[in-house]
Amino acid sequence: MAKDVTFFIDCPTLEARMQTLPNVPSVADASGKRAVQRCDLLGHPPFSDMPHGLFRAYLSPAYKATVKQVRTWMEEAGMHCRIDAAGNLIGRYEGLVPDAPALLIGSHLDSVKNAGKYDGMLGVILGIEAVAYFHAQKKRFPFAIEVIGFGDEEGSRFPVSMLTSRAVAGSLDKLPTIEDEKGTSIQQALQENGLDPAQYLEAAYKPSQVLAYFEAHIEQGPVLESLHHAVGLVTSIAAQYRFQVVMKGMAGHAGTLPMHLRQDALAAAAEAISCIEKIAQSGPDDLVATVGQMRVKPGAPNIVPGWVEFSIDVRAGTESVRNAAAEKITHALQEISQKRDVDMTLTLQHDLSASPCNPQLGAILAASIQTVTGQPAYSLVSGAGHDAMIMAALAPVCMLFIRCERGISHNPAEAVQDEDVETALRVMCDFIQNIPSEKSV
Amino acid sequence: MAKDVTFFIDCPTLEARMQTLPNVPSVADASGKRAVQRCDLLGHPPFSDMPHGLFRAYLSPAYKATVKQVRTWMEEAGMHCRIDAAGNLIGRYEGLVPDAPALLIGSHLDSVKNAGKYDGMLGVILGIEAVAYFHAQKKRFPFAIEVIGFGDEEGSRFPVSMLTSRAVAGSLDKLPTIEDEKGTSIQQALQENGLDPAQYLEAAYKPSQVLAYFEAHIEQGPVLESLHHAVGLVTSIAAQYRFQVVMKGMAGHAGTLPMHLRQDALAAAAEAISCIEKIAQSGPDDLVATVGQMRVKPGAPNIVPGWVEFSIDVRAGTESVRNAAAEKITHALQEISQKRDVDMTLTLQHDLSASPCNPQLGAILAASIQTVTGQPAYSLVSGAGHDAMIMAALAPVCMLFIRCERGISHNPAEAVQDEDVETALRVMCDFIQNIPSEKSV
Repeated sequence: MAKDVTFFIDCPTLEARMQTLPNVPSVADASGKRAVQRCDLLGHPPFSDMPHGLFRAYLSPAYKATVKQVRTWMEEAGMHCRIDAAGNLIGRYEGLVPDAPALLIGSHLDSVKNAGKYDGMLGVILGIEAVAYFHAQKKRFPFAIEVIGFGDEEGSRFPVSMLTSRAVAGSLDKLPTIEDEKGTSIQQALQENGLDPAQYLEAAYKPSQVLAYFEAHIEQGPVLESLHHAVGLVTSIAAQYRFQVVMKGMAGHAGTLPMHLRQDALAAAAEAISCIEKIAQSGPDDLVATVGQMRVKPGAPNIVPGWVEFSIDVRAGTESVRNAAAEKITHALQEISQKRDVDMTLTLQHDLSASPCNPQLGAILAASIQTVTGQPAYSLVSGAGHDAMIMAALAPVCMLFIRCERGISHNPAEAVQDEDVETALRVMCDFIQNIPSEKSV
Repeated sequence: MAKDVTFFIDCPTLEARMQTLPNVPSVADASGKRAVQRCDLLGHPPFSDMPHGLFRAYLSPAYKATVKQVRTWMEEAGMHCRIDAAGNLIGRYEGLVPDAPALLIGSHLDSVKNAGKYDGMLGVILGIEAVAYFHAQKKRFPFAIEVIGFGDEEGSRFPVSMLTSRAVAGSLDKLPTIEDEKGTSIQQALQENGLDPAQYLEAAYKPSQVLAYFEAHIEQGPVLESLHHAVGLVTSIAAQYRFQVVMKGMAGHAGTLPMHLRQDALAAAAEAISCIEKIAQSGPDDLVATVGQMRVKPGAPNIVPGWVEFSIDVRAGTESVRNAAAEKITHALQEISQKRDVDMTLTLQHDLSASPCNPQLGAILAASIQTVTGQPAYSLVSGAGHDAMIMAALAPVCMLFIRCERGISHNPAEAVQDEDVETALRVMCDFIQNIPSEKSV
């Protein structure tokens, strides 16, 4: 395990500002309500780099303030804390035996710009609440519990995402040479925070140190809400393809080019988008396909478009479903381009495999959901990526989704219900008491 | 008629540069080939404001050089020249009787950025060639012939188009207060060129001074080429509608929002574009509809689009055809937005009436086409706007289209065949000899 490092120079101004913050119950009264309150508290300066709204970038001043505050809560919950070589905050609640393998409960501390307050942070805070619950009862397990607040999941500062979970999972070969928008390298940013870039990879755990990885996260989608479930069992993190398509026709005068002589790249793209939608709609529930980005040239109202570029994002719970859809889409687009005498190039840009969650852990989590809610667990695929998919390289993983309002995320309107978070906390506590102390891969 | 004005301060550097230009035959040997050569000569500096390629903006240095050169050719062809109060270049070939009403032959001197060399300019040069042809034979008519090079048809410098033909036609109420990209007002630009903005409207002709207006122009479309006609008779300049459409759905995560819960604004727009295309394809040949401009927000590959804006341009030879198509389109878009639970606003931005050409003059021009080509004249609607549609307010108008390669225009690849231009010149000369000397409205 990477040794603890000296993290963050103390900042008197920050100290002063943090003393003026409203009080959040600091008693060991673990609750979903308190978890929500804590996330809310962290949604503003000094825990945000934006004066209004939330933006918490990896290794930024807001990140520093957040680590300081969350560390306090971890310590109150009976954990010993450290900052690892990648700047992740890790609190350890020792097991019955010293140095026992740990159940890792994690999610991310960073956020996108103008973010919601629960994406990532809620999973970290719920881990602390669960430990606080057991700590209050002086209950320990044959395994340790470690709560990890990952520094970078969103690619919030540097143009790479999930860098810190890759460091922890041991799947990072080397620290990349990347810069933030202001031209500060990640190496500089680490040094400015008292971290040594040369030691970055020492954040990696050995598989023998880890029992399992658990992550609670808001769904960031509307499925649980539409079906009236407070929480859901994640069976897999979706396989994803991203394509870039360029269609080249012939630009022309909108007034003088008769319809039958046109090679309109936008009309071709429009037909393609309708096909992509139909293919996704006719597939299984976990299949989604999206055209989210589009550019049209020359782009004048009086010119028939000669060039269009658009993205296609295809995701499904399994690679076979995703691949079959991608094949249908490719075939349909080729037919459209041939029929319309429009050139087409389709380039695969991303190919992410599916990350299935561990079925044995999933079964235990499903049982906990049924115990707490009185209903059979609802299973769903996560269409979004999470640290869990990286951590699957290190240990068996397991994920719990929490209902969020209208599926809105990456937006200040992101919202959760206290009761749903309470349900999630109870499910987590039940789950922790039921998992075997031996690795179940 | 507006009095002649002192135009353009002499520029010694320009004089020196113009003396180095290749020679173009200056004998009175009017020909299509020479017309093309003259346009080619004018396609580069000093007649262009771009170092490579053509951009000739109204009242720019290139415009000044062009007026100077074209004026020389007009004078060689036996015309007396003046610059009117709007900066248009006008050459007059006197009739048998002094101060007789004039047949105006015009088109525009200005160009778009990175333009072709024949759009506009060829019509002016062909007017000069026709006069040169009659001047060589010392032939005069009961009417005068005036060749007009309009300063602004394209909106090449200021954000208003056809300003100078509106001044000549008397349909301009006042000189608008507008600025070019550099912040120079049209008033300043006129003054810098020795013109008085206060006199701008004095460019207007009285209807009694004008017999008719004739314009030769490249087709800027592929119809004549596809049907193997060198020239075509324009029966009307199309009626045009331009709409701006905004569709608002709900943005969402491309991975977590299931297909059946989406309100995808781009998928709705794609269906709309396909409908618009089908409606135009199923109408008469002169109906065209184009979506040329489109913006998608948020515009990220992993976000379902919540907002799309696009333009619709609808044109037809008659208002009834255009209006019927626009009604079908509106109805289809409303159905799509209702079905998909996507808000739609559709705003009419332009409404240009059709400008029918004068049928009597059209019949004479058709006869001239048949005489010269040995084939019945092919009639078509001009989908593009031209100075002729403005001049229709002043006098009966008549237009001749010249085949251009693959319909390409507003592009350096714009091309015409010498023989086609020769055909056009002969048609014009035959037409001029056959029009009645009384106004035929």
